[in-house]
Amino acid sequence: MPTRIFGDIPGIPEGSEFESRVMLSHYGVHRPLQAGISGSQLEGADSIVLSGGYEDDEDLGDEIIYTGHGGRSLDTGQQVTDQQLARQNLALALNCQRGLPVRVIRGYNHRSPFSPTEGYRYDGLYRIDSYWRERGRSGFYVWRFRLVKLVTVGAPNQVDEERQTYGETRRVDVTIQRIVRNTEIALHVKELYEYQCQVCRTLVFTSAGPYAEAAHIQPLGRPHNGPDTLTNLLCLCPNHHVMFDFGGFGIANDMGLIGLDGQLHQKANHRIDRQFLAYHREHFLMNP
Amino acid sequence: MPTRIFGDIPGIPEGSEFESRVMLSHYGVHRPLQAGISGSQLEGADSIVLSGGYEDDEDLGDEIIYTGHGGRSLDTGQQVTDQQLARQNLALALNCQRGLPVRVIRGYNHRSPFSPTEGYRYDGLYRIDSYWRERGRSGFYVWRFRLVKLVTVGAPNQVDEERQTYGETRRVDVTIQRIVRNTEIALHVKELYEYQCQVCRTLVFTSAGPYAEAAHIQPLGRPHNGPDTLTNLLCLCPNHHVMFDFGGFGIANDMGLIGLDGQLHQKANHRIDRQFLAYHREHFLMNP
Repeated sequence: MPTRIFGDIPGIPEGSEFESRVMLSHYGVHRPLQAGISGSQLEGADSIVLSGGYEDDEDLGDEIIYTGHGGRSLDTGQQVTDQQLARQNLALALNCQRGLPVRVIRGYNHRSPFSPTEGYRYDGLYRIDSYWRERGRSGFYVWRFRLVKLVTVGAPNQVDEERQTYGETRRVDVTIQRIVRNTEIALHVKELYEYQCQVCRTLVFTSAGPYAEAAHIQPLGRPHNGPDTLTNLLCLCPNHHVMFDFGGFGIANDMGLIGLDGQLHQKANHRIDRQFLAYHREHFLMNP
Repeated sequence: MPTRIFGDIPGIPEGSEFESRVMLSHYGVHRPLQAGISGSQLEGADSIVLSGGYEDDEDLGDEIIYTGHGGRSLDTGQQVTDQQLARQNLALALNCQRGLPVRVIRGYNHRSPFSPTEGYRYDGLYRIDSYWRERGRSGFYVWRFRLVKLVTVGAPNQVDEERQTYGETRRVDVTIQRIVRNTEIALHVKELYEYQCQVCRTLVFTSAGPYAEAAHIQPLGRPHNGPDTLTNLLCLCPNHHVMFDFGGFGIANDMGLIGLDGQLHQKANHRIDRQFLAYHREHFLMNP
């Protein structure tokens, strides 16, 4: 099975048109032939097709309120039970937590002024801004996702609002690839620690599962230019990520904490480069 | 003393020129006549003037690496001691933590291709992306701030990356006013609890002081449209903010926690509207 690609498919620009689901699948823009959401509950969702679908959907162009999958009768298409935050719905929730982009394809049979009159059109990348549950018109719970189009203007004063990628590039397509690459290595460090904070061992739980953050020791981007490697990454809870980034504590070369009691928890197969720890102490710690 | 204004001064658009510091002060664009940073270590910084100044500064137009204040000899202007993260430097650090914009003014004597040839020019609003300490060319520590210009393109597919304000408006100037207004009420709830989390009483410390987040119970913006009022706000640590936003716990009408042990800590002068708690439980909690 081919690797799931998050972001643009090379050679398929936004606006590309396809005559059928078969062609969408053939070009890898949206692989499943039937399902509206392409994704897994471990990796996230790489693409969605808007086509007919839920009466509760709202399409404002740059912003889409998308209703999740499940709970409908195979016979009548009516909502007959509550949707669960599982499978493809959970995949979309993971995109939200991990900042992964999703490809959006609009179909001719999607009820929206933004739909093509025939076939299917790839309409670019969206981020999942938030998700929540509500009672649909049927009276059953559905999961809803707010999708916001990623900025693609090329104006000279455009900046990339994603802090960690700023300064590397101003082109959004490259930025997306960076976000995705960051996400892979970030996922790796989080899975290595099973989402437990390396400082306090806390496990932060959400409705989409455990949550942790990958923290760069020497920051990415100008002027620090730290590398995006496992040797420069920590798995931290949000509290210790804020504290680390803003000089609330540092880490000695023997992994003792400075400014906090205790020792950094470190797995045997996680080498941390001491030069990055020294860089952090020098630049972010008030009293190193 | 007039209130400190964060954001544009009404009637003074970006690009406005002034012949002297006296005129800058008169129009309220940058009030102090001598200091390069206008701000307080309780409120943050509202404006800076780039003029001559530190040899370590870097001006790339949309991105500025700005060196903090202090440690220089009054006689020679040479750096003779380490800079401290206090006073105006701490003010800039607070902007970073609180998301407050700063007005940037370039002077004729600022060594940069972006400087005016005479007088002073108001060059718009920047956010403080990050700050850190490093040894300047003098060998003494200086504090450095990376400023990134706030996006002002009016392209039709521009979106506001600030999650909480998306959907309200696409005009950046209005957005800035919203950020500032949000920040005032957010500051209020944080100060009410002295930056302690209402769930766990944790106090997160950084080099710029205690850190907490103001969490909206019923989210702002479409489609939730919660109000930006104290009755809809909580003071949370980053961990409990993530958990709350992603359905890791809820709050009952009697302020008992759902999904966590214990009770929400609530000050007598902080009324929390139960309809917002019910909205959150209904839409974000998996098993309410």
